[in-house]
Amino acid sequence: MPQTLTILKVGGAIVEEEAQLHHLLHEFAAIRGHKILVHGGGRRATKVAQALGIETTMIAGRRITDESMLEVVTMVYGGLVNKSLVARLQALGVDAIGLTGADMDVMRAHRRPPVAVDGTTVDYGYVGDIDHVCARRLQMLIDSGITPVMAPLTHDGQGHLLNTNADTIAAAVARALAPAYDVALHYSFEKAGVLADPNDENSVIRRITCESFAHLKAQGIVAGGMLPKIENALSAIADGVKEVHIGETVIAND
Amino acid sequence: MPQTLTILKVGGAIVEEEAQLHHLLHEFAAIRGHKILVHGGGRRATKVAQALGIETTMIAGRRITDESMLEVVTMVYGGLVNKSLVARLQALGVDAIGLTGADMDVMRAHRRPPVAVDGTTVDYGYVGDIDHVCARRLQMLIDSGITPVMAPLTHDGQGHLLNTNADTIAAAVARALAPAYDVALHYSFEKAGVLADPNDENSVIRRITCESFAHLKAQGIVAGGMLPKIENALSAIADGVKEVHIGETVIAND
Repeated sequence: MPQTLTILKVGGAIVEEEAQLHHLLHEFAAIRGHKILVHGGGRRATKVAQALGIETTMIAGRRITDESMLEVVTMVYGGLVNKSLVARLQALGVDAIGLTGADMDVMRAHRRPPVAVDGTTVDYGYVGDIDHVCARRLQMLIDSGITPVMAPLTHDGQGHLLNTNADTIAAAVARALAPAYDVALHYSFEKAGVLADPNDENSVIRRITCESFAHLKAQGIVAGGMLPKIENALSAIADGVKEVHIGETVIAND
Repeated sequence: MPQTLTILKVGGAIVEEEAQLHHLLHEFAAIRGHKILVHGGGRRATKVAQALGIETTMIAGRRITDESMLEVVTMVYGGLVNKSLVARLQALGVDAIGLTGADMDVMRAHRRPPVAVDGTTVDYGYVGDIDHVCARRLQMLIDSGITPVMAPLTHDGQGHLLNTNADTIAAAVARALAPAYDVALHYSFEKAGVLADPNDENSVIRRITCESFAHLKAQGIVAGGMLPKIENALSAIADGVKEVHIGETVIAND
């Protein structure tokens, strides 16, 4: 039977709030079996950019990454956030290693071409869409008892780092490792989970399958921003990932 | 016969000057056999600190590292400089991985206690003196064809990163790996090498041994800042490192 691998994706808000981070790191350290942490850091990047006099522009929730902003996210994601997490996990007995996609070529991407957003053409700059995750290198680390801590940065193989969405990285890594492990992908989430009633944190839908999702969608229970999240989760399941957790909601095959 | 391992230490000045860096990376990529790059980044850290309104204080050539400065060096050494070097080496066919001491616990240190410098007590802050290099983890990478790129940061095992001199890191890594490989440690140097006449770049002393050093020292040919450099090199040799290169000068056993 394949061994379990838990991939936890945490967003910028958690990483930047000390009490939550402390709790999260202890919870993560307590997870048994193989594990990977994928982190964001956008709020911190925005703060550092501001302190450096660099303006942050977001379009459709994504950061425009020109050369100066690439330097900021390389510093903040690859350095400050990543290495602080690694040092703190080491103190909790987790043998962590910080990685960007450039390290051991674990995640290669291409720069996103300009795209149409709301009728205008947007060049996101040094933003990468993932082409390849090197499962072999990640397995070498994992099977040696090491816990990768992955920053939202990839590279193009031509010498350039690229800013890449952490949710996407978590899903790509989960897919790539699904043939080798029983992968559970957890998205930490600001709500308790997928809610049947968006105003009631007690209305968490415990389990969603491909079939039940069709009903939830038809009935309009799940709508808006949750749709692409669940569709991505179901697509990862279709590719062999065992379970995707969005907060307390489990998305699985049956 | 043990395999060769070349450890190249490059200073901040080279890392920050594009033409020199380009040349250096190509030279490094061409080195055959196993290799490790150890880098500084102090000039860049000083620039970023300045842009953030954080004052840089150096005492006896060493940076005072308070909490804000630790954030700056974590960003600059661990993120900006380290990950840029890794991405560029990947483009040159070198399967590089960026590491601080916290990653896989490869270099553990303790915070330096306040020390007397020129008659006053100086607290260098979050500055680390190395206690242990984990040769086993580095060997796992090296023997898999991976090239470590090491930032001048260690950790204390209690969750704190520590600013650590890159020359010292290079020497500690060389010593730790000397039992497993034929290690040659190269310090890139602003002069051609150790000079018999400090005003003549053509007066490089080609080879220094323990014995010849005693003569050079007694005759006053080698003096000042070169003395501790050569003493450190000879001490590394005594600990099993095959050769230390300071520019074009080779320091070896015979």
